[in-house]
Amino acid sequence: MDLVTIDDIRAAAASIAGWVVRTPLMPVLWDDDLLIKPESLQPVGSFKLRGATHALAGLPPAERERGVITHSSGNHGQALAYAARIAGAPCTVVIPEGAPAVKVEQVRALGAEVVLVPPPQRLHEARRIAAENGLTLIPPFDDPRVIAGQGTVGLEIIEDLPDLDVVLVPVGGGGLASGVATAIRELAPEAAVIGVEPEYAADAHQSLAAGEVVVWDEARTYRTSADGLRTSLSPLTFAHLRERLDDIVTVTEAEIAAAMARLVRDARLVVEPSGAVATAARLFRINELPRGRAVAVVSGGNVDPAVLAAAVTA
Amino acid sequence: MDLVTIDDIRAAAASIAGWVVRTPLMPVLWDDDLLIKPESLQPVGSFKLRGATHALAGLPPAERERGVITHSSGNHGQALAYAARIAGAPCTVVIPEGAPAVKVEQVRALGAEVVLVPPPQRLHEARRIAAENGLTLIPPFDDPRVIAGQGTVGLEIIEDLPDLDVVLVPVGGGGLASGVATAIRELAPEAAVIGVEPEYAADAHQSLAAGEVVVWDEARTYRTSADGLRTSLSPLTFAHLRERLDDIVTVTEAEIAAAMARLVRDARLVVEPSGAVATAARLFRINELPRGRAVAVVSGGNVDPAVLAAAVTA
Repeated sequence: MDLVTIDDIRAAAASIAGWVVRTPLMPVLWDDDLLIKPESLQPVGSFKLRGATHALAGLPPAERERGVITHSSGNHGQALAYAARIAGAPCTVVIPEGAPAVKVEQVRALGAEVVLVPPPQRLHEARRIAAENGLTLIPPFDDPRVIAGQGTVGLEIIEDLPDLDVVLVPVGGGGLASGVATAIRELAPEAAVIGVEPEYAADAHQSLAAGEVVVWDEARTYRTSADGLRTSLSPLTFAHLRERLDDIVTVTEAEIAAAMARLVRDARLVVEPSGAVATAARLFRINELPRGRAVAVVSGGNVDPAVLAAAVTA
Repeated sequence: MDLVTIDDIRAAAASIAGWVVRTPLMPVLWDDDLLIKPESLQPVGSFKLRGATHALAGLPPAERERGVITHSSGNHGQALAYAARIAGAPCTVVIPEGAPAVKVEQVRALGAEVVLVPPPQRLHEARRIAAENGLTLIPPFDDPRVIAGQGTVGLEIIEDLPDLDVVLVPVGGGGLASGVATAIRELAPEAAVIGVEPEYAADAHQSLAAGEVVVWDEARTYRTSADGLRTSLSPLTFAHLRERLDDIVTVTEAEIAAAMARLVRDARLVVEPSGAVATAARLFRINELPRGRAVAVVSGGNVDPAVLAAAVTA
């Protein structure tokens, strides 16, 4: 299987420049050796804009004009809708019936067409509509263009802090972790890249231990508040992580909530539970991590107001 | 009176590079022609770190070793304490008795010595302690070094968006607005720089109309939630604003609260009321502003958790 290369990531950096926020590294008051990479500052609130923008930029004009489609109702759906609007490409987002109305409205407000389908038919329907209308399917993580786009997070980290020791990155479907690990492994081979998962969605940890993709069913993963990290790896992201990730640590729900509260109150960042896991690992699992100067990627900030209010007043 | 020059601001940019977060411009979903400059991302939560860091960097080593002092218990006090810790300089912060315990603790946690005094004796005590111990007083805004440091906000805005039309900047003591107006006037003379004040602290607006510094007493200014903007101008900041600011608009308390809610929920930024006024002007006073591409400076994010929770759930 061909893995994404540092040149792919450099090409992605060139194609997204000016279309995606170049996020800084933020020092924090509670830990002199920790810097935050706040991807929650992207206009759609997550790093997903990087991969979506790069995937769109690489399409031949005729394909772009016919349009793109995805089956993610979460951060990737919003990111693709936003990137498509800027690229002038029609965008369709297939969303399972029963998804929160606010998510549907957000995608519609970005100018995308929403198709509601029964949950189990999501992927099938996306593929059918794509084939019928000549649309290009842009998947949320199982795609080399998307992985290369997310890898620009790692490229920027090294630009800003070449002598770092550890990068902590959330693992859901593994697109972000695959891209970041590729960049760091190439540009700062001495540094460790550590994935972070909720203990209720530690499928990537188990997959790496087993040497093959292990899928956790929804009855297990729905228990984590980190809804962006419930997804399983694909063979493509598994291959990247097996080759390039140093380790995966897991964090509890209480640790995720405490890290969210810390980020909101002391780093002034609105973060979602998935976005807080890397910071949680540094706060609560430091004995399981390599020593030294660390960067924690805050992957996103699309959080339910009630959850945010709880974090503020905790 | 000598005003700060663009060369002073360029020198400040060189002296703070690497010590202060280089904040990006953030697009927002609700307004295609608005970008946010999020100074709330500084490690102490406000732009004040720029001026404090530059003022400290310019001190002769012997003065720096003796230490610095200020009489601001707000964002400038925290910023000076943080900058002094990094510079290895002793720092004293004079705080009025009755200030919230959390503010006192934050300054102490940054390693500064806190001296509590009866409120009316604040400035007098700071001067007395400075003279007695050979400390250098670093005022919150009435100082060319501090103004030059805050002006780096304007320099960075132009680096990122050379063809902008309007910059919206909060006005309290006027240090930030003086510095930003100096940079924009020099580097983008076609662009307008508009100050923004709460209507309950519109003393700078009135001062510019009157042609002299007008001071509003605390009985008037305590009514605004934007506690960072209750301060009056000094002759030095008045001279900068009279020469270089295009206009000042005022916003209501309800507009400030609505802008805070918008920034928290839709830009994922934790902001304080003072930090939200420029965004409030763009949201609610657009008919009073020049047309075109605008940058709103979000000056800070040190907000009481209860106020933040109210903004989240509003």
